[in-house]
Amino acid sequence: MVIENLQQAFVEEIVHRAIQCNAIYEDRYLLGTSLARPIIARAQVLAAEKYNCEYVSHGCTGKGNDQVRFELAYAACNPALKVIAPWRMPEFITKFQGRQDLLKYAAEKNIPVSSTPKAPWSMDDNLVHCSYEAGILEDPDHSPPKELWTRTVDPLDAPDKVYQFSVHFEHGIPVKVVTEDKQEVTESVELFKLLNKIGHDNGVGRVDIVENRFIGLKSRGCYDTPGLTIARLAHIDIEGLVMDSKVRELRDQFVTQAWSRQLYNGMYFSPEREFVEVALVASQKNVTGVVRMGVYRGSAFVLGRSSDASNLYSQEDASMDSLEGFSPEDTTGFIAIQAIRLKKYGLMKRQLGQPLSES
Amino acid sequence: MVIENLQQAFVEEIVHRAIQCNAIYEDRYLLGTSLARPIIARAQVLAAEKYNCEYVSHGCTGKGNDQVRFELAYAACNPALKVIAPWRMPEFITKFQGRQDLLKYAAEKNIPVSSTPKAPWSMDDNLVHCSYEAGILEDPDHSPPKELWTRTVDPLDAPDKVYQFSVHFEHGIPVKVVTEDKQEVTESVELFKLLNKIGHDNGVGRVDIVENRFIGLKSRGCYDTPGLTIARLAHIDIEGLVMDSKVRELRDQFVTQAWSRQLYNGMYFSPEREFVEVALVASQKNVTGVVRMGVYRGSAFVLGRSSDASNLYSQEDASMDSLEGFSPEDTTGFIAIQAIRLKKYGLMKRQLGQPLSES
Amino acid sequence: MVIENLQQAFVEEIVHRAIQCNAIYEDRYLLGTSLARPIIARAQVLAAEKYNCEYVSHGCTGKGNDQVRFELAYAACNPALKVIAPWRMPEFITKFQGRQDLLKYAAEKNIPVSSTPKAPWSMDDNLVHCSYEAGILEDPDHSPPKELWTRTVDPLDAPDKVYQFSVHFEHGIPVKVVTEDKQEVTESVELFKLLNKIGHDNGVGRVDIVENRFIGLKSRGCYDTPGLTIARLAHIDIEGLVMDSKVRELRDQFVTQAWSRQLYNGMYFSPEREFVEVALVASQKNVTGVVRMGVYRGSAFVLGRSSDASNLYSQEDASMDSLEGFSPEDTTGFIAIQAIRLKKYGLMKRQLGQPLSES
Amino acid sequence: MVIENLQQAFVEEIVHRAIQCNAIYEDRYLLGTSLARPIIARAQVLAAEKYNCEYVSHGCTGKGNDQVRFELAYAACNPALKVIAPWRMPEFITKFQGRQDLLKYAAEKNIPVSSTPKAPWSMDDNLVHCSYEAGILEDPDHSPPKELWTRTVDPLDAPDKVYQFSVHFEHGIPVKVVTEDKQEVTESVELFKLLNKIGHDNGVGRVDIVENRFIGLKSRGCYDTPGLTIARLAHIDIEGLVMDSKVRELRDQFVTQAWSRQLYNGMYFSPEREFVEVALVASQKNVTGVVRMGVYRGSAFVLGRSSDASNLYSQEDASMDSLEGFSPEDTTGFIAIQAIRLKKYGLMKRQLGQPLSES
Repeated sequence: MVIENLQQAFVEEIVHRAIQCNAIYEDRYLLGTSLARPIIARAQVLAAEKYNCEYVSHGCTGKGNDQVRFELAYAACNPALKVIAPWRMPEFITKFQGRQDLLKYAAEKNIPVSSTPKAPWSMDDNLVHCSYEAGILEDPDHSPPKELWTRTVDPLDAPDKVYQFSVHFEHGIPVKVVTEDKQEVTESVELFKLLNKIGHDNGVGRVDIVENRFIGLKSRGCYDTPGLTIARLAHIDIEGLVMDSKVRELRDQFVTQAWSRQLYNGMYFSPEREFVEVALVASQKNVTGVVRMGVYRGSAFVLGRSSDASNLYSQEDASMDSLEGFSPEDTTGFIAIQAIRLKKYGLMKRQLGQPLSES
Repeated sequence: MVIENLQQAFVEEIVHRAIQCNAIYEDRYLLGTSLARPIIARAQVLAAEKYNCEYVSHGCTGKGNDQVRFELAYAACNPALKVIAPWRMPEFITKFQGRQDLLKYAAEKNIPVSSTPKAPWSMDDNLVHCSYEAGILEDPDHSPPKELWTRTVDPLDAPDKVYQFSVHFEHGIPVKVVTEDKQEVTESVELFKLLNKIGHDNGVGRVDIVENRFIGLKSRGCYDTPGLTIARLAHIDIEGLVMDSKVRELRDQFVTQAWSRQLYNGMYFSPEREFVEVALVASQKNVTGVVRMGVYRGSAFVLGRSSDASNLYSQEDASMDSLEGFSPEDTTGFIAIQAIRLKKYGLMKRQLGQPLSES
Repeated sequence: MVIENLQQAFVEEIVHRAIQCNAIYEDRYLLGTSLARPIIARAQVLAAEKYNCEYVSHGCTGKGNDQVRFELAYAACNPALKVIAPWRMPEFITKFQGRQDLLKYAAEKNIPVSSTPKAPWSMDDNLVHCSYEAGILEDPDHSPPKELWTRTVDPLDAPDKVYQFSVHFEHGIPVKVVTEDKQEVTESVELFKLLNKIGHDNGVGRVDIVENRFIGLKSRGCYDTPGLTIARLAHIDIEGLVMDSKVRELRDQFVTQAWSRQLYNGMYFSPEREFVEVALVASQKNVTGVVRMGVYRGSAFVLGRSSDASNLYSQEDASMDSLEGFSPEDTTGFIAIQAIRLKKYGLMKRQLGQPLSES
Repeated sequence: MVIENLQQAFVEEIVHRAIQCNAIYEDRYLLGTSLARPIIARAQVLAAEKYNCEYVSHGCTGKGNDQVRFELAYAACNPALKVIAPWRMPEFITKFQGRQDLLKYAAEKNIPVSSTPKAPWSMDDNLVHCSYEAGILEDPDHSPPKELWTRTVDPLDAPDKVYQFSVHFEHGIPVKVVTEDKQEVTESVELFKLLNKIGHDNGVGRVDIVENRFIGLKSRGCYDTPGLTIARLAHIDIEGLVMDSKVRELRDQFVTQAWSRQLYNGMYFSPEREFVEVALVASQKNVTGVVRMGVYRGSAFVLGRSSDASNLYSQEDASMDSLEGFSPEDTTGFIAIQAIRLKKYGLMKRQLGQPLSES
């Protein structure tokens, strides 16, 4: 048995990239499980090579995303390795139709497992999140019970006060967190754990969704993602202050969706992920600054932000109390040019007797 | 003076579209001000035509977005109308450099205005939201004071219990809200006002950002958007249950960003908005169902969802306890085909001695 | 045996859509084979239903795109039908490793086939094109021999004069072709056949590429697509005259690529194709006008275009000899506003001592 | 007066990028004028700085794109410089309404100009192309006269034989051209001039379009772009052989359109162009190989291609005569998984009595 601590690689190679691109799947899932798979799979391959193994294996079911993520990663990292996927092998699936059968078997054989009749769902836990699915959650109208969540306290049980802290970014990566009670952390894994703790204690980061799996089925998942929820919000906020608007528009349209989908679909070890990541890193050149934040009973929010690294926000320029360096007539021209096309469109509507707006 | 009630047109022509496309600008701004401008501008044009006016006017400054939104709408709705924009006219801007000068003038002349030394910021209030900007908010690190927010109570002052209700959608439009205390509302404006009240009472919908204005400046804005925040979350959730995954992917990439940006930039009365809206409406064909929700001290969250209108989510199919109608070997083939390309990539990396992953 | 004439459905349901969206795959392939498959597959399903068949079948190999196109169409059109795909069945593929084995078998059994030792490649011929692949073409550096092409004469053998004709569009669909020798055709299939003949006689529409198949392999294909090459160019040209620029930009980015890829990957009978096609049709509202064209020894080109349906092109507006209705100062303002952001960027570069441009 | 040779910078900084991204605007314009402006503007700024000038100037009209391109480039390269744009200054435009007035003035004052009553259009000539617009071309249905084109011979006058040559690429950049008459050129400017000559002599690269200018007007332009037309086709072809399909798909959707539009709109010196170009260069990592080509009386075409730099095309893998390393059952599974979603869609259509396909 080989047990390795992969936390640093996980945080620095993957989680930091997720923060940098505000990664999200279908508007809500922060990709907690998807992010971890490449690091695990690569470590499996390296261990297999070290010990001259011909096979690697995983315990994912045949209906989920994780089998795809593991096996595509194996295929890219070492195309010669063969895969044992017991949940898809006839000798096992005729015996065990699903998790219930396996739980029964485990009970008969006194094998301890986390999924029990008391917690009738499946969990995947890593540094970033814990996911809950299957069992009673397969009814998408069945609310997750209070005891399900393991990584965040119930917002109703969280302290009745705002807890404040600041997150410092360099090139889009969180490099320091300072809290209201004078903790200051800079090491990457410790920093992320501190954000996890802040989120945990204040009930921040719960999501309950029905999502579209890569293999064409919909499934319901609950996710508990305290630290990454906070880090993502802080990062989005500092980008508002320091990132060029057109770079942001292109990054949002291209990088964020593409990278997130690549990770979700198990395409981390791929030329397209490397391609997109080059653009991602380039977009973060100036994303340096500090975000002051608060958390309170389920919510995280921004209290203010600042940066010495960018001249893009200028209090003088933005001010409604100053016209320094700004000629209002310019805007008249700007609008007039934009209007050329719209006036033609309006004229044609009038000529054709069409309503002013339609959809 | 002409005073008209435009609420129904606002809700049904614009706000419903914003809900249907999960409209958002730069990840956080729900476009409250942008949504209202087309309806106001069109009504101005219609009034001008009724009374044979040659001119329309607005009070927007020369540095902001709203001047563009009003004037492009005028241009499209009636290209012959001329615009008076006092904030850009030399005779005024030499006298009044900004809001401060104008506030002083108002004070001297005993003209009552909402922006006062006690509330030193500018506000724009409509059915959807209230925005706050300028004044002390021009320092992006200055947190908005507690008394700033007018449309939501402070989360710390909200009730210490979850309030539950359900939102019913047909074709992506909210058609009924039922609350835990047996209110049931179906009329479009009343329904939206009820969501506003639920959000208000529970402190839901505050946002504080630095955003990129159309005219190339960054500005800081605070927004209070209770009802639309709730409606948008509910809509995203029901889409998870009933919308085809590929339609969603295309809609997210194309419609959501395009429509939001068109509204933000004042391009509502345009061929491209009409074009995008045709696709938007088509995407909502099956978006019918019920979302059960809760709100608590600043957060809104989903408790469950259901729909009779779609067969896309199937408890049987998704179940980890059943293999009915599903052949696990198929997934083996699916993965093998996906891996063809990645194996070649992995082999080339090995031949070139490159690391397994890079960015 | 059932033999049906599907040409009208093919042209009106599919080819017209391809023309309307300027469909193209990887910059060059006009999708000739991909376009035909849905119509054939649907007719197979309808015939199978009429005669109470449980199975449908096709003769595609296990490495190509067409198996996917046929089978996904069967699955959508009648999910209960089962598929017989001999090229993927062990009893056949152990006996026949590939086309060569099958050609040998055909020769032994005196079964006439088009692919012969004299023409050692595979062909797929339909109203739109003929494709050539496999055999000697598997070497991507082996030029296709002169005798390969069946749908176009060699440009060197074409008439040594320009042949002129005009294509009339309504809503993006070609509705009339008039030739220099006074032919005038309006019926959809006949019109397309006339364009085919014009292209054939003048050597227009040959393409030779290496493309990426859906299943992850690259393959080399040669395509002979006379009429659609001409129709696509004419359509692109009339769009230049009458289509709004922003609608076009969105359509190019979204509809053209999505629809083309959907057809290539066999996703015609899908919610996403229907979704995209709604937008496609909406984009063609004003695409009405006439394009005058010429063809000469391998090239098609535009000689002029006109339209009564749009006010977007205005000789007066565009003229460099008139300033009627145009205020040059407006452009000054337009540029000044666009420059706000770029000046900040230039200033920062200077402060940091960076080069004026970099990549 | 300062006269500098900027050809090498033009080719290596800009034209090579255009080739690498297959740059094109609205499906046809190869951006010849747009590509040259940044290099000229930057050289103007550097000369202005060298001689301590406060002003730079250009001769573009107030209705075109070039004024925007020059002035945005000036603004980014040196925000302190002021611009003199005579065509937008009241003292000139009251005197000269357009080109005709200016031609008359030139004639009166015996100033030699290229635009004459015999050639009543405006031209812009550089290493990449010559553009023709205005004058008689303002009628979009007026065919360009034979004598208009300066950079290509009339296809009817070109040699009646195919001329062959090969283009060698490294990382997407043409590094060597070898012709059938044993010319071999590797220097960047000379190589491009050789492609220009090949295109010129064989009538390759003419385009006649109506395009959408940045400032909202449509205009008609004719463009003569011999070398770049050939280089672009060769580059697209080699990408087919060696570029990963998913990288290509993302590059096509993102980089090609964005970069082309940035250049067209005068945004070369901008953070977004730098951002996109990082991705562009990354996409070309493996684009190395040789394309054999022919040209004949107006057409350029590919005769074959090869590369030692990529394992992505494999004759063995693609072959229809081999099943080595390929399991046909895998495709069965691949299709089955893709069909899950489409079967549900088909079932719902049947239940609702909807047609099998619609648009």
